[in-house]
Parts: sequence; C-alpha cells; structure tokens
Amino acid sequence: MSYRFPDDSIALHTDAYELSMMQTYWQKGMAQRRSVFELYFRNMPFGNGYAVFAGLQRVVSYIQQLKFSDSDIDYLKQTGQFDADFLEYLRDFKFTGSINSTVEGDLVFNNEPILQVDAPLIGAQLVETALLNIINYQTLIATKAARIKSVVGDDPLLEFGTRRAQEMDAAIWGTRAAYIGGFDATSNVRAGKLFGIPISGTHAHALVQTYMNDYDAFKAYAETHKDCVFLVDTFDTLKSGVPNAIRVAKEMGDKINFQGVRIDSGDIAYISKRVREMLDEAGFKDAKVYASNDLDEKTIMNLKMQKAKIDVWGVGTKLITAFDQPALGAVYKLVSFEDEHGQMIDSIKISSNVTKVSTPGKKQVWRITDQSDGKTEGDYVTLWDEKPQDKESLYMFNPDYTYINKTLHNFAARPILQPIFTNGKLVYDLPELDEIKLFSKRHLDMLWDEYKRDLNPQVYPVDLSQECFDNKMKIIKQVRDYVNQLKF
Amino acid sequence: MSYRFPDDSIALHTDAYELSMMQTYWQKGMAQRRSVFELYFRNMPFGNGYAVFAGLQRVVSYIQQLKFSDSDIDYLKQTGQFDADFLEYLRDFKFTGSINSTVEGDLVFNNEPILQVDAPLIGAQLVETALLNIINYQTLIATKAARIKSVVGDDPLLEFGTRRAQEMDAAIWGTRAAYIGGFDATSNVRAGKLFGIPISGTHAHALVQTYMNDYDAFKAYAETHKDCVFLVDTFDTLKSGVPNAIRVAKEMGDKINFQGVRIDSGDIAYISKRVREMLDEAGFKDAKVYASNDLDEKTIMNLKMQKAKIDVWGVGTKLITAFDQPALGAVYKLVSFEDEHGQMIDSIKISSNVTKVSTPGKKQVWRITDQSDGKTEGDYVTLWDEKPQDKESLYMFNPDYTYINKTLHNFAARPILQPIFTNGKLVYDLPELDEIKLFSKRHLDMLWDEYKRDLNPQVYPVDLSQECFDNKMKIIKQVRDYVNQLKF
Repeated sequence: MSYRFPDDSIALHTDAYELSMMQTYWQKGMAQRRSVFELYFRNMPFGNGYAVFAGLQRVVSYIQQLKFSDSDIDYLKQTGQFDADFLEYLRDFKFTGSINSTVEGDLVFNNEPILQVDAPLIGAQLVETALLNIINYQTLIATKAARIKSVVGDDPLLEFGTRRAQEMDAAIWGTRAAYIGGFDATSNVRAGKLFGIPISGTHAHALVQTYMNDYDAFKAYAETHKDCVFLVDTFDTLKSGVPNAIRVAKEMGDKINFQGVRIDSGDIAYISKRVREMLDEAGFKDAKVYASNDLDEKTIMNLKMQKAKIDVWGVGTKLITAFDQPALGAVYKLVSFEDEHGQMIDSIKISSNVTKVSTPGKKQVWRITDQSDGKTEGDYVTLWDEKPQDKESLYMFNPDYTYINKTLHNFAARPILQPIFTNGKLVYDLPELDEIKLFSKRHLDMLWDEYKRDLNPQVYPVDLSQECFDNKMKIIKQVRDYVNQLKF
Repeated sequence: MSYRFPDDSIALHTDAYELSMMQTYWQKGMAQRRSVFELYFRNMPFGNGYAVFAGLQRVVSYIQQLKFSDSDIDYLKQTGQFDADFLEYLRDFKFTGSINSTVEGDLVFNNEPILQVDAPLIGAQLVETALLNIINYQTLIATKAARIKSVVGDDPLLEFGTRRAQEMDAAIWGTRAAYIGGFDATSNVRAGKLFGIPISGTHAHALVQTYMNDYDAFKAYAETHKDCVFLVDTFDTLKSGVPNAIRVAKEMGDKINFQGVRIDSGDIAYISKRVREMLDEAGFKDAKVYASNDLDEKTIMNLKMQKAKIDVWGVGTKLITAFDQPALGAVYKLVSFEDEHGQMIDSIKISSNVTKVSTPGKKQVWRITDQSDGKTEGDYVTLWDEKPQDKESLYMFNPDYTYINKTLHNFAARPILQPIFTNGKLVYDLPELDEIKLFSKRHLDMLWDEYKRDLNPQVYPVDLSQECFDNKMKIIKQVRDYVNQLKF
C-alpha cells in the first residue's frame, strides 16, 4: 500500500496529538507511569438496544505489529515538531502493557468499559486512535448486521457491499463483522480467503450484455458452472429474463443445479410474486428468488409485510456503510493514573455536556443473569477488585435515577472484560469466526425481546455498584471544589 | 494485514461473480475479446451540483499490483467453485488493457463516463469491484470536503476523523481526498508521511487529567513544545481552561509560540465569543480559537451566522464518513464489445428504473467553456472519435428534455478522460498532491456559483452529442424489438 516507503508501518496510524503528548510524558519522566484508559460508547447506534462488539482480532494484530520503522522515525524528524532524543526512544518502543477486552460477538451497552488498557502511559496514549478506529467501525457493522438478521429470520443473508464500502479495509473487516452479526456469506473473495467466510455470487448484467440476449448468456453460464443463479433483469425481467432462465434450466436438466434467479431492480415486491408463480408453474418449486437493491432492515420488513416472495437477501450499501448512522462514537478516557509517589489516582473528564462526564476508576463489567430463567437482568459496573459473584444478593440501581432499583437473589455474574494482553504478551486464544458467531447468537438469545426490537427498545440497565458510584461522586466534588477555588 | 497468508494479494479484492463470469468467458473463448466498460455516477452526493473526482492514485497502484498469488489460487481451488485449468490460467494473469480516466481533482457530473476500461474482457471484468470501491469512497469524501470548504472561506480546515473513520484505509485515503477537496491539514500522522499532508494536533484531555489541573498540564506541554494550542475544556472552559492557558502563555512569554486554545464541547457559539474576549483582554489578539465537535458545512454555516469567534475548524466524523450520505453509487457498465467477427458492438443495460438505462458506445466527455469569460458551459458527451473542438459552433441539448438546447460559438472543449494505462503500461505521470489540489481549485473557480451553492444548486448540463444520442435510441429500439418478439 505504501509507494515510497517499503518499511512503512502502522505505528503512525495515530493522531498527531498522541505523539505530542507522548513527547511531554517522556520529557517529564512520566512515560512509564502506570495508567488505565477505558474505551466506551455513549450511545447505541440506530436507536438499537444493544451493540455487538467486533474488532478484537484486528486490535490484536495491530498491537503485535506495533513498532516504529526507520522511515517512520525519519518522517517524524523531518516534520520538525519532535525532539531528537524522544524519537530515538521511539525507535525501540514496544507495547508492554495489558489489555482487557470484551470478546468479539459479545453484547455491549452504553457507558460501560468495553476495552481497557492498563499500561505505561506512553503506550496507552499511542494506541488510542487506532483502537477507536477499529472498534467503532467493526462494532457498528456487526450491530447493523444483527438488526437486519432480526427481520429475516432463517432466510439466507448475503453481504454484497464491497463496491460501496468506504475503501478496502471497510469492505474486508466490515464483511467479517457482518458475519459475526448474523450474515451467512459474502461476495468479497478476499474476505472469504482471509476469514473462511462462505463466498457467494453468480453473474452480472455484463455477461448477458456480451451475449446480447438472456438465453445465450444463461446457457453459456450453465455450461460453465454447476450451481446456477441467473440474473434476470438485464433487458426485461418478466418477458425475457425469467422465461429464458426457465428454458435453460429445463434444457440443462440434471447437468446443472438450478438454484434460482436474482432480481436487482424494479418493483421487487410485485416482481418477486410474479417470478415465484412463473417458477412454480414451470415446476421449479425449490428454485429460490434472490433479491438485492439498497435493502436494509426497514425495506426488508416492508417487503415481508407486502408478502414479497423473496427467499435470499443480498444486502450491500446500507449494511457496509451503516447508511443511516455511519459512525459510532466510542471514546477512550483516562480513568486512573499513577502519581509521583506510586499511588493510583482515579481520574475524571468533566464537561458541560452531562453525557461527556466519565466514570473514574479501573472497572469491570458484570453481566447479571437470573439463574431461574437464564435471562439477562442488566450490567453491573464495579471497581476492578469487587466480587459481586460472591454476594448473596445484589442491589442494582440506575446511576442517573437512583430511585429505580432492584435486589436480585438467585443471580449469576459473568465478567465481560477478559485478559487479552498481559504485560505486552498475548494471553488470549483467538476463537474461530464461526465460534464467535455462535457465541454472539447464544448471548443475544439470553436478552429479553424488549431490548431487541428494532424500534424504541427498552433501555437496558447499566448500573454502577455503590462503591463505583460513591467514588465517582467524590471525584466530581473534588473537581468542582478545585474549579471553585480558582482565582485569576 | 494478513495473518495466515504471507503472500496475500489484492487480486481477490473483488466480488465472487466477477470470477464466475471470468470462468465462463475463458471457457467460451471470449476472455481476450475487446470490451469497453465505463464507470459513472447516477446521482451527485448531498444534493450537490458537482463531485470532485479522487481515487486515481490508488487505482494506479491497484492495477500495478494486480497478480494472483499462490495462496489466492489455492484458496479458489479449495472453494470447489472453479475449474482447475481456469485457475492455472489465472496464475499468469496480467492486466493488459487500457484505462482512460478523469484526473484527480477534476469535477465530474451525473451520467457521464468518469473512468473507462478498454481491455480484454477477462481483465476488464476482474477490476470492476475494486475500481468502484476506491472511486466511490474517495470521490465522496473529496466532494464533502469541497462543500465544507465552501462555507469556511479562508479559515484553516483540519481533518480530525481517523477515530470515527470506517476502518484504517478510509482514514488514510479519506484524508487525502479531503486535502484535494480543500482541507489544509490532517491529524493522521501516517497520512502525513505517505502523502506529504501537513499534520496538526496538540494534546487531549488525558494530558490534563494526568496533572489533575489545567495549569500544570499546560505548563508541562509548553515546556516540551514550541508551538502551543491548549485544550481548555477538561474541567471548566471559562473558569479554569482559558484563564490557565492565558497564565501559562504570559509566564512562558517568548519561550513558546502561543497559537491559541481549542474547545471541543459545550455551546461553542457562546463559549467562543467569551474566549475571544478573554484572549483579547489578556493581549493575545493573534491567538486563535480552534473548534471541533461534530462539525460539518451546516453547523459551520450556523456558527458563522451566530458570529461565533472561531478561527480554525477541526472536522472529523461528518467529513470522514460523509455522515449525511455515506455512499456514492457509481456503476460500471459494458458499453461496447467485440463480437465473434472482430466487430465492436455497442451495448446497453435496460431497466424498468429509467435512471438505470446506460448510454452505449465508447465515449469521451468534453468540458465546454465559453472563451469570452472562461466559464464552464456544460459537459458534452460524444462517441470516442468525434472531434467537437474542430466545429465552428456546438449545438447542445438536454438528452431527456430535448427542447432545452443552445448553440455555442466561441467555445473551447477540454477532453476529460485522459490516458492512464495503454495496453497494460502506465502512461500517466501522477501529479504531486498539492498540484492536484490547485488544479481542483482552479477548475471549481471556473464553475458558475449557481452550480456550487450547497442547497438546491442548478443542474449542470451533461448533454449527449447528436451522434451519441441517436446511437442510444437505435440500441434501445433494438432491445425493445428483441424483447417484444420473444415467445414462450
């Protein structure tokens, strides 16, 4: 990808301010101080009730490759913005910290840490930008995919978005995220190769155009492939495409596996019904109707309401760009920091935007389930060393509206953040993609339907433990007191 | 980027159906037949009156690297979907065709070819997906950047979107496209290195949090950097951030270059005015106010209407994802094809969606300017061999509403499609990025303001020559006649 720099690395895939801060930390002797940063979302995308976490495989690969190359250092020198000794230090930089993360496919919610970096300050600062870049996008697409999956039931879902994706990485990693969220196959061959996702695709209009008629084109395709889905809308779907597809299927008989026809334009609600009738009348009751054309969960739901006869859904643009909300806003905030005496001090970011106030302290998230029905009751955010699973009963309350509360007895508590790197060493065994997909499905099944509906879902409880809540209130007060005593 | 395949290539960055069709072409002896495909848009993004073409550098790199690796071939074999001899053929595949393209930074409009592949069918088919993936995204972002640039005037524009971009390639190539469209600098250090874009960035909230107060943090930053912009909204912008920034600037005096302060939250219209007053009162009349926080052309226009005192604009999410319309829908259609007798036959794709009907024939686009004022009069699409520049007068008419027409006399005609590859060989000298940026600005200046306004611009004329129009009508009639005589 790099034209001028054969040794180009991804270490510079970061915002300039990370490097500026790193220079300050290094010159001020703070580079090796322990710091804890947490990554979290403030809002779920699409008004959804949950998000499906994705991106960890890419994060692991990023951390493992993280090293400044000679050309990186030369470039930084040439900008004139950095100290020469600092750049020499960077030449030997390694990420030596720990990362605890949600695992891919698991569900995540607002205002709870979904990834945590516990590392020397300089390294924890460097990785901020890339972690956000990776996780924001992949989680967005896995969540969009789960929404679409929720309306198609067991119908096969094909990812067709590469040509409209936001450049190549989005196509590749987006389709992987879509597979985690419930898609069954992709058109992107490289994603098939890299991740083992089944690939899907037959032919385009161009094939029909080169023969200048549907019959010869379908015949040629059938003579050169066993499995056949014919694209029937090049000239006229009902007058030419479908009748010619049927004619070729009859002529070829057992020599091919006639799987069906694909429509990509026109009024697909109406056309699909006519196509179904034509296929049935011709005796091809098992042949499927494939449809694509700017589909998403809303159009699919509408097509189903209209009783469109579509068996297989090809979804492109609206999925791979998360068209109705193309960005997720995870942030990465310092929650605890080692002071000059070696003490860890919890830290906050205050803002006049209430939702931008962070929760201080190194934390764990516990997913609480009711043991009697196996259903998820909510998330319980604690300071890192709390052990809610040892308690007889668990008092949960809403941190904004504290009068909303409940006490659970027969509960289980599953820790969401799992160790991925410990002191720079990978300690996590990355699962196969199909394992991730099944894990995701199983945990989604544990969520009440009220949190899963597409429109206006119930708000899932993300509660703070009393200790965590008190700590936050104490630190907010400290900051307020500090600001109020300032005099200029 | 690839974990399991050290020899991984981008040849498989394509839709599965391209490879399926290639197998048919190859088995049917059509692989080497000459074909012409054209890439074009059906709609401009954001309701804009024009688009800024970007992506060519990446296209050149893609074509030059296009080769199937051993692991690519092994993977395709293992899918069981491809013929073994065909895969052996792919092993030696090279792109041997020609590509004519709009150059980066030039303006493009609806329904005119912006890139043309004239190549043996098999290669022309393979590259479809990647060309669309690259050009759709980069053109989208260059166009969004130009819209934002149009409202800020000469104020500096900084690209801050990496953390919200749709994965890494989007961050890198998106910021390059933004620079072409009018941005001045980027936060992405790697983009700075790869493309020579100036980088920009100071510090984040984390730096202030590690010191637990603004004063010590700004002081530490100032002692470790010459150029200083302080982020003032960690605890309280007006009570702590700005007064402490001023205090440090005064204390450090000439030891630093105090450039200003940055605000990233709160009511930035109100806050910016107060901050300006405070800076002015303290004697820092040259210090700038930097603002960011989900800005785009609409919010910037609103802030300017409210007389917000902002000097430098940091734009992230809304630019890098093209938030209000995150996908462009360029398509790639066969327009001419060599038949079995070696004759080129022009080809069409008909659809019941009128806007999906393509214009047959290998074409050139001519940008027509009035020599008297240097202003652009419209685009004139001809068959490839027409020479409109040799004419005394030019009759231009709207191809949908043919009664809208005009005759030009003192005109110049500039061909938009330029040779990039000829018979597989690169014949184009890629310009430097700053050249592209200036070229784009110059051509945008030649466009009437009526086509450039953000809201409800005039529709720019894209007319067909009489010859091109007649050819299209003739072929539509041929296809209609073919469909109407079909009997089943």
